[in-house]
Amino acid sequence: MGRTEVEQFLNNQKKNIEEQLPTYISQLSAPNIIKDAMHYSLEAGGKRIRPLLLVGTLHSFGKDESIGLPTACAIEMIHTYSLIHDDLPSMDDDDLRRGKPTNHKVFGEAVAILAGDALLTYSFQIVSESLGDQISPEKKLLLVTELAKASGPEGMVGGQVADMEGEGAVLNLDELEYIHHHKTGKLLAYSVIAGAILADATSEQLEKLTQFAHHLGLAFQIRDDILDIEGTEVVLGKPVGSDTGNHKNTYPALLSLEGAKEKLTFHIDEAKRFLYSVDMKHDILDYMCNLIASRDH
Amino acid sequence: MGRTEVEQFLNNQKKNIEEQLPTYISQLSAPNIIKDAMHYSLEAGGKRIRPLLLVGTLHSFGKDESIGLPTACAIEMIHTYSLIHDDLPSMDDDDLRRGKPTNHKVFGEAVAILAGDALLTYSFQIVSESLGDQISPEKKLLLVTELAKASGPEGMVGGQVADMEGEGAVLNLDELEYIHHHKTGKLLAYSVIAGAILADATSEQLEKLTQFAHHLGLAFQIRDDILDIEGTEVVLGKPVGSDTGNHKNTYPALLSLEGAKEKLTFHIDEAKRFLYSVDMKHDILDYMCNLIASRDH
Repeated sequence: MGRTEVEQFLNNQKKNIEEQLPTYISQLSAPNIIKDAMHYSLEAGGKRIRPLLLVGTLHSFGKDESIGLPTACAIEMIHTYSLIHDDLPSMDDDDLRRGKPTNHKVFGEAVAILAGDALLTYSFQIVSESLGDQISPEKKLLLVTELAKASGPEGMVGGQVADMEGEGAVLNLDELEYIHHHKTGKLLAYSVIAGAILADATSEQLEKLTQFAHHLGLAFQIRDDILDIEGTEVVLGKPVGSDTGNHKNTYPALLSLEGAKEKLTFHIDEAKRFLYSVDMKHDILDYMCNLIASRDH
Repeated sequence: MGRTEVEQFLNNQKKNIEEQLPTYISQLSAPNIIKDAMHYSLEAGGKRIRPLLLVGTLHSFGKDESIGLPTACAIEMIHTYSLIHDDLPSMDDDDLRRGKPTNHKVFGEAVAILAGDALLTYSFQIVSESLGDQISPEKKLLLVTELAKASGPEGMVGGQVADMEGEGAVLNLDELEYIHHHKTGKLLAYSVIAGAILADATSEQLEKLTQFAHHLGLAFQIRDDILDIEGTEVVLGKPVGSDTGNHKNTYPALLSLEGAKEKLTFHIDEAKRFLYSVDMKHDILDYMCNLIASRDH
């Protein structure tokens, strides 16, 4: 596919995902306030990078992207729950997320905590029930197991804890990479892996795609840190320099802005090297590498 | 089994569960602080009613109880995560739980929130990975789906939200039962259902056992409300009358103490009626009905 078709593909898939997410919420039999709170943060926008990585991977293997839609939505729910909990007063204490008031500013802390819990729990239901008999129980079970690993104490939650513990301390590059590999990288990697599992990838392909996603995840985080210095508040939807203000460990702080940019290029190059080592289509995922390397929000 | 053997069975099973829980935590590769926080609340004691209902159900069907141990531990993790989040300052703001400082009093709010998230997520991993090939993928997947339903927005989390919303208002009996059916009942019911699924129960047996667990769950909650009035602080591990102090809706407040006691007897009788309608052993679950009806903490 050419650049325009790739962009059209991603726009269409993003539209599918954003139509499906509220459907999952509206069909719930639950108190309205919790449905509203779940819905509020799910529809707050965002790039939908994770679900797009999943359907992009299915496309790469020449598979029907629609079989990945439930799992793609589940991943976005997990990502969204993590943002709701991260923004809480006892965590990052953020009032704005993507230019809108954070969940607890609108619904209060208690409902925000429960909306996060609900999104997390519901995501496992969605994966385990997805598409009835179209996906084998073995495959669904693997998707559940890997999702729990990627987002639990050995994955995203572990990274979040390490990040909090690192605040105030000066970390070295290994420690910083540990944090981001877990906090951001594992769920990004799962997005690719889930697509590959659904596409019946071989274990060798899974291994290479894990490496691809690992480097892509670090690149994503480094770009985030660079944006925090170079971005504008309007585009970012959060105050520029908020990371520095909170004394967070960032790549530019550790490596200088130039060094961070070099590191970004390195990880994007590595990601592409692993991507192209897998025998499949590369157009969508290659485009997504470039998107992540150059995104302005 | 006679009463002594039943008690011995339950004590042995409780010991197994309490030995397995810390093993699940210690084998995690995660920052120590989150493992400590997860461990702290898991080992804070409690009656282990839910996991015991699961293994008790397996016993009733004449099955090896050990096949239920992973799922039993997962249920206890979900229950424990819900207590950690319920106790948070923005929720019930409790300083004591089972006579010990609550999780956030020891580890701080941020770690407490994350420890809850970690326990919730890890529980799905434990169920989906449990016992390798000894349990079929179909069965494990059903266990995952039902666990998510019982504990998510259509289950426990939904009940917790309804409970919070009902505070300050005067509820009728239907509204109060909705809250407890979801907040407490669904996970208790899941404990029985999970045992029945693992024991290859028929759908008719599952239906009857769901009714059994529904009444048992309501009885459990009514006893809780009665204890809050009649109990002593030392035995309960929390201040007596704390529900009344917080203007919570309770059965005694709605039906008088006598009326609540009658309701308790009604639900225990109904639970036993459904229990005995299933062709299996009844000794353990009958004993657990009596235990729940008469427990003093």
